[in-house]
Amino acid sequence: MFPYSSGKYQIPNPNYRFIPQGQYYNPYSEPSWAWWHYPQDFGGSYRLPAPQRLTFVLVHGAWADSHFWDDVAEVLRSHGNTVHAPEYAGHGSDPNKNVTHAMISKSVVDYIKHLNLHDFILVGHSFGGTVIQKVAEQVPDRIKRLVFWDAFVLKDGESLVDQLPPPTRQGFEALRKMSNDDTIMLPFETFRAMFVNTASTEDAKHFYTSVAPEPAKPLFEKLDLKAFYALPTPKSYVYFYQDNVLPQGEGYGWHPHMSTRLGLFRLIVGDGDHFTDTRTRPAYLAQKIYDASRD
Amino acid sequence: MFPYSSGKYQIPNPNYRFIPQGQYYNPYSEPSWAWWHYPQDFGGSYRLPAPQRLTFVLVHGAWADSHFWDDVAEVLRSHGNTVHAPEYAGHGSDPNKNVTHAMISKSVVDYIKHLNLHDFILVGHSFGGTVIQKVAEQVPDRIKRLVFWDAFVLKDGESLVDQLPPPTRQGFEALRKMSNDDTIMLPFETFRAMFVNTASTEDAKHFYTSVAPEPAKPLFEKLDLKAFYALPTPKSYVYFYQDNVLPQGEGYGWHPHMSTRLGLFRLIVGDGDHFTDTRTRPAYLAQKIYDASRD
Amino acid sequence: MFPYSSGKYQIPNPNYRFIPQGQYYNPYSEPSWAWWHYPQDFGGSYRLPAPQRLTFVLVHGAWADSHFWDDVAEVLRSHGNTVHAPEYAGHGSDPNKNVTHAMISKSVVDYIKHLNLHDFILVGHSFGGTVIQKVAEQVPDRIKRLVFWDAFVLKDGESLVDQLPPPTRQGFEALRKMSNDDTIMLPFETFRAMFVNTASTEDAKHFYTSVAPEPAKPLFEKLDLKAFYALPTPKSYVYFYQDNVLPQGEGYGWHPHMSTRLGLFRLIVGDGDHFTDTRTRPAYLAQKIYDASRD
Repeated sequence: MFPYSSGKYQIPNPNYRFIPQGQYYNPYSEPSWAWWHYPQDFGGSYRLPAPQRLTFVLVHGAWADSHFWDDVAEVLRSHGNTVHAPEYAGHGSDPNKNVTHAMISKSVVDYIKHLNLHDFILVGHSFGGTVIQKVAEQVPDRIKRLVFWDAFVLKDGESLVDQLPPPTRQGFEALRKMSNDDTIMLPFETFRAMFVNTASTEDAKHFYTSVAPEPAKPLFEKLDLKAFYALPTPKSYVYFYQDNVLPQGEGYGWHPHMSTRLGLFRLIVGDGDHFTDTRTRPAYLAQKIYDASRD
Repeated sequence: MFPYSSGKYQIPNPNYRFIPQGQYYNPYSEPSWAWWHYPQDFGGSYRLPAPQRLTFVLVHGAWADSHFWDDVAEVLRSHGNTVHAPEYAGHGSDPNKNVTHAMISKSVVDYIKHLNLHDFILVGHSFGGTVIQKVAEQVPDRIKRLVFWDAFVLKDGESLVDQLPPPTRQGFEALRKMSNDDTIMLPFETFRAMFVNTASTEDAKHFYTSVAPEPAKPLFEKLDLKAFYALPTPKSYVYFYQDNVLPQGEGYGWHPHMSTRLGLFRLIVGDGDHFTDTRTRPAYLAQKIYDASRD
Repeated sequence: MFPYSSGKYQIPNPNYRFIPQGQYYNPYSEPSWAWWHYPQDFGGSYRLPAPQRLTFVLVHGAWADSHFWDDVAEVLRSHGNTVHAPEYAGHGSDPNKNVTHAMISKSVVDYIKHLNLHDFILVGHSFGGTVIQKVAEQVPDRIKRLVFWDAFVLKDGESLVDQLPPPTRQGFEALRKMSNDDTIMLPFETFRAMFVNTASTEDAKHFYTSVAPEPAKPLFEKLDLKAFYALPTPKSYVYFYQDNVLPQGEGYGWHPHMSTRLGLFRLIVGDGDHFTDTRTRPAYLAQKIYDASRD
C-alpha cells in the first residue's frame, strides 16, 4: 500500500513494507476496546480452537537431501497437515553434481507445478533460503507464506558465500579446490562444531554418515533477487539460538542480520542448532515451523 | 559515590555509575570467605525464605491501556504483593487523543501522589519506559526500583521514534498521516508480526480487538532526560527474546542497545514476545518482573 | 592442514582454522548416504550409548576460589568423570595478593604436572579464560579440549580490562585505587546486578559472603598469546544468556564477540547468569560443560 525507501539505514531491504498491502483497517469500525482474558487463566473448561491444517513444501539446505525432513514431516502429517519435501538437482540420488542455482530452483518449481500445489507454506532451511527466494519469484501466486529457518536471505546480487565471514569463505574455497568434481565436503570436526554442536557424540557420527559432498557452484553464484523484494508474500523467520554455522552479530548471522532483510516478518525463536533437532526433537522443530506458518 | 564520564564509548550514559552510591563495603570487615552450598542440592529439607512482598506500579505502553496488566496484577496480588496499574492521558476511556508526553507522565505522577505511594517498584513496558523515565524525575524519593520490560530507555533529547529503524519510523509517519485525529492505528498484520508473533491465530485476533489508535505526538516528542540520568535509583531490565517490535542488534533493540543506557542494571531474560505472555503466561511474566524487582 | 589469513575481517583470529588439522575425510570412501532416524521418535526400546567418562580441570575466575566448582564437580564425579579444581596464586587461602598473571598460570601448570594429568578437558570461567589460554601454551600436548564458559578470550597483546566497556574499566580503576593492597573489591550492588542477577535475594547475599578482594594486577596485564593462537587444540564455548558481566553486542560480550576469536569452536548455550547456577543448578551447568566437552 505504501512502499517506501529505507534511506541510509542498511538493514531492511528498500522494498520493506511496514504496512502490508490491503491490510489497513478502519481503526474506529470494530474494536470493542475490551481487553480479552485468556480463559485458561481463570479455570473452568477452555475449548481449544481446532488447529489450522496447512500444506507445507519443505526445502532442505546444503550437505543434506530431502530425507533431512523425514521426521519433521511425519510429525506435521500426524497433526493433519499435508507435507511435501522435494529433492532438487545435484542432491539425493542425482549423480550429476555439476548443477547451477537455476537448476535447483527449477527442480522445486517443477515439483510444485507438476503436483499443482497452491496456498502452501514454503519453508527453506540454510542454503534452502536462497532456493525459496528464487522459487517465490517464479510461482508467487501459489504461496501462502515464506518461512526461513536459519536460512540465508540474500540481497539482490549477493551469493551465499558473500554472507560468510572471510575465514569460513576461505575454508569453503580451500575445500572446493581439494575436490575433483567441484564439490565441497565438510570435514567431520567442522560439521560437528558448526552443524550438530548440541548433539551427542554418537548422534553426531550418525548425522555425518548422511552428509554428501555439496555442489560448490550454487554457493558462489550471485543471484538476481529484484523480483523477490517486490513480493508482498507474508514472511516468517525461525531462529535457533544454538545454531553455530554463522557467528551471530557484528555484521553476520541469521537473526537479526538476515531476518530483518525480509521487512515485516514474524519471528519465532527456538533453542536448537542447525541440524540436530530434525532427528532428536522433530516435534519441537515441527511446532516452531507450525507457529511460524499459521495465520 | 564516584560518578565518571564514559569517554568515547557510546553505550552507557555519561552518568553511568559502576559503583552505586552509598554501596561500598569495607572488603575486610565481614565476609567469611566460605563458599555457600545451596541446600537443595544435598537432599534433606530446605526451608525456602519467605518471599518479599512488594508494591508495584505498572505502566503500560502504546496500543494498550491499563487492562493490559490485569492478569499479571492478579498473579502478583495472589502472592501477597500490592499492585497498581494507573491509566494515563489519551488512553483507556479518555476520549481526548490530543495529548502530550508531559500530560501522560503527569497522570502517573498524580496517581502516585493521590494514593501517597512510597517505596514501590515502578515498571514500564515499551513506550511506558519513556513514561517511567519522566515519572522518576518527578517523584524520585518514592521509588524503590525502576524495572523496564522491553521498554524504551531514551537518551536525553531523544524521541521514541528516534529509536526505530527508518522503515518502521516511516511506517509510523505514513500511518499518522492517514488518521484524522493525529493517531496511529496498527494494521492487523503489522501487529500480528511484531507484537504477538508467538500467539496462536485466535489469540492474535483476540488481542487485536483491544488495540486502539495511539496518540501520535508523544511518540515523536524529544524528551529532556538530564535529571533521569542523575538518579541513583536501582534499575533492572527484563528482556524477552522473541520480542519482534525492534530488530535486536546492529544499532537497535531492547537489550543490550537500550538496557546498557541504564548503567548498572540487573538483567532478567525470558522467552516471550511483546504482548502475548500478558494473557497466555501471566504467571511466567509476573515471576520475571518479580525476579527483576526483589532486593 | 590449511591455515590461512582472515584478511580484513576482524572477528576470528588470523590463525583460525576452518579445516581442522588431520581431520579431512575422503568424501567418497564411507558414507552410506542414508539419513539416520533417531530411534526414540519411533517407539520401541532404544539403548542409550554409555556416556563418555572424561577428566576435567576446572579453572575459576576472579572474585572466586576453587570452591566455586564444588557442586559442579560433585555432579560430574557422580557420573563417573574425574574432576580437578586447582587453586591458584593470590586466591583461596593464599595470603599474598601481590601476584602476576604468570604466577597464576604457573600454579595451574604445576598442578597439572605434579599430578601428571593427560588427555583432560581444561575449563576456564570468566578471568579463568585468560588463565587457560596461557596454561594451554605451556602444556598443549596434555590437553584434549579447551572449554570457555562465559570466559575471556583475549587477543595477543590484550589485557582483561581491554575487553571491558570504558565505564566498567573506569569502575575497576576507581575501586583499585580505593584499596591499600592493590586489590579490587566489588560492592554488593555491583556484584548483585552483574554476577548473580537471577539469584534470589537470600542467595545473592550468601554468594557475596564468599567474595574476596581480587588481585588487580593480573586483570591489567597485557598477555602475549601468539603461541595460543597457533594451537590446534579443539575448543568449545559455553554461553549463558542471562550473564550480565559484559554487555552482549555492539563490540563487547562473551558470544559472539569473544567466542569467535577461537576460530572453529563448538557452541553450547544455557539460560543462566555468571555465578548463580554453580549453586542453584549445578546439574544443569555440569550438563552444559559436559555437552561442550564430549567428543
